[in-house]
Amino acid sequence: MAQLSEVVMVRGVLLDISGVLYQDDEPLPGAVAAVQKLQQAGIDFRLLTNTSRRTAEAIYYDLKRMGFAISERQLYTAPRAMLDYLQKHNLRPYCLMHPNLDPEFARLNHTNPNAVVVCDAGERFDYKGLNKAFQVLMNDDAKLLAIGENRYFRSRNRLQLDAGPFVKALEYASGKQAVVLGKPAPAFFDSALASLGLPADEVLMIGDDVEADVNGALQAGLRACLVKTGKYLEGDESRAPDGLLADDLLQAVEEFTVTA
Amino acid sequence: MAQLSEVVMVRGVLLDISGVLYQDDEPLPGAVAAVQKLQQAGIDFRLLTNTSRRTAEAIYYDLKRMGFAISERQLYTAPRAMLDYLQKHNLRPYCLMHPNLDPEFARLNHTNPNAVVVCDAGERFDYKGLNKAFQVLMNDDAKLLAIGENRYFRSRNRLQLDAGPFVKALEYASGKQAVVLGKPAPAFFDSALASLGLPADEVLMIGDDVEADVNGALQAGLRACLVKTGKYLEGDESRAPDGLLADDLLQAVEEFTVTA
Repeated sequence: MAQLSEVVMVRGVLLDISGVLYQDDEPLPGAVAAVQKLQQAGIDFRLLTNTSRRTAEAIYYDLKRMGFAISERQLYTAPRAMLDYLQKHNLRPYCLMHPNLDPEFARLNHTNPNAVVVCDAGERFDYKGLNKAFQVLMNDDAKLLAIGENRYFRSRNRLQLDAGPFVKALEYASGKQAVVLGKPAPAFFDSALASLGLPADEVLMIGDDVEADVNGALQAGLRACLVKTGKYLEGDESRAPDGLLADDLLQAVEEFTVTA
Repeated sequence: MAQLSEVVMVRGVLLDISGVLYQDDEPLPGAVAAVQKLQQAGIDFRLLTNTSRRTAEAIYYDLKRMGFAISERQLYTAPRAMLDYLQKHNLRPYCLMHPNLDPEFARLNHTNPNAVVVCDAGERFDYKGLNKAFQVLMNDDAKLLAIGENRYFRSRNRLQLDAGPFVKALEYASGKQAVVLGKPAPAFFDSALASLGLPADEVLMIGDDVEADVNGALQAGLRACLVKTGKYLEGDESRAPDGLLADDLLQAVEEFTVTA
């Protein structure tokens, strides 16, 4: 793994949430203290998640309940980026989406769809829904939009399929390439950077997903640190030789931000 | 598309079934006559299918009912190749499979699975089943076995997702590559060639799937003809520049076999 250059200070941090701040319904050891350390050191941060089984509001209240001192404006979720994109491009989506997100997307026009939206739909990923999505995509002008390409996440002590494999299934079936709205899309990182008001190379992304978090951030020009919590599997760091590595969020914050 | 070389005679034919011999429950126009012409010309043939929603026996009786004069020994199905492979390698499969095939695979040991088998499971492709398959695959020694990589098939006048996209989903999630037992696997073509007792370059594959049928056969050393029935979509032939092209099975038989 890389060593942090001493030349450029880390002045801002982007944090993945699930597997970094908490696991299932509990904060990870040291995570609340790590966020406090960032605040005490005056290092501004944003939370950047591809999680799409809950609304941003629900995630925010969960984090508050667990003791994380954050404000809702610090939260950047891929479903919100998706909603913005759909509205901006005036698209009529067919959504493979968790029921929890239905209310936020209900305001859109879903008739005669010209886009397929793939979030982490969980149990809604079934043959009927995927087949319908495929049939929409076989119309020439229909776009495939994805929350992310994450392979899996950790929950209840097991790895579970995330949205990415279903995105790949639809890409393969339709011959189309998905537009990704969440991590690792540079535009998603850029929106959080703009909010921090910092250049990419002064910001460190900390996450447990070697592709979406670490390689995504590196490609967007940020520094990035993989943590060995959440979905981390031994050897993941070999897939991001330019990333940093830490045991957990607290170590990442202490080694690469407040003391840098 | 290619022109048939006059140098080598076509002495045997391999026929895809769905979309070539029949569509849904009806024989395609001219298909029964085409099979008769092959028989009258003394050109031996085998039927080679990745279809896995029905047993070989059920397919055979359907073909007979539709008027195709074939014997069951001419039928090569990917599920039978799969069953042979599992038994030969003594594997304990977790099966994503249509309920119609359950009885044929029931004799295998399914406890503590060390292989995932993906057939065209239809409605059984759901999150729970795919997630379980993924979790099996995350064991180091577990193999991913696929009936085929077909993207879609035509049924009830629409394209419908086949097994391929779900194979790709599991490949992406697990980082493993599937072993394909049906078309386009050379071994599957070879088993039918051995039964014909003919060298590959004297045998013509006729199918509606440009990848599994046409490019698969070409890679196995056969000649291959794409027909514009079944799942054929305009322009498919551009993906197989070395293949032949015909409107339907009857034209393929008349132009490239009996008169060759």
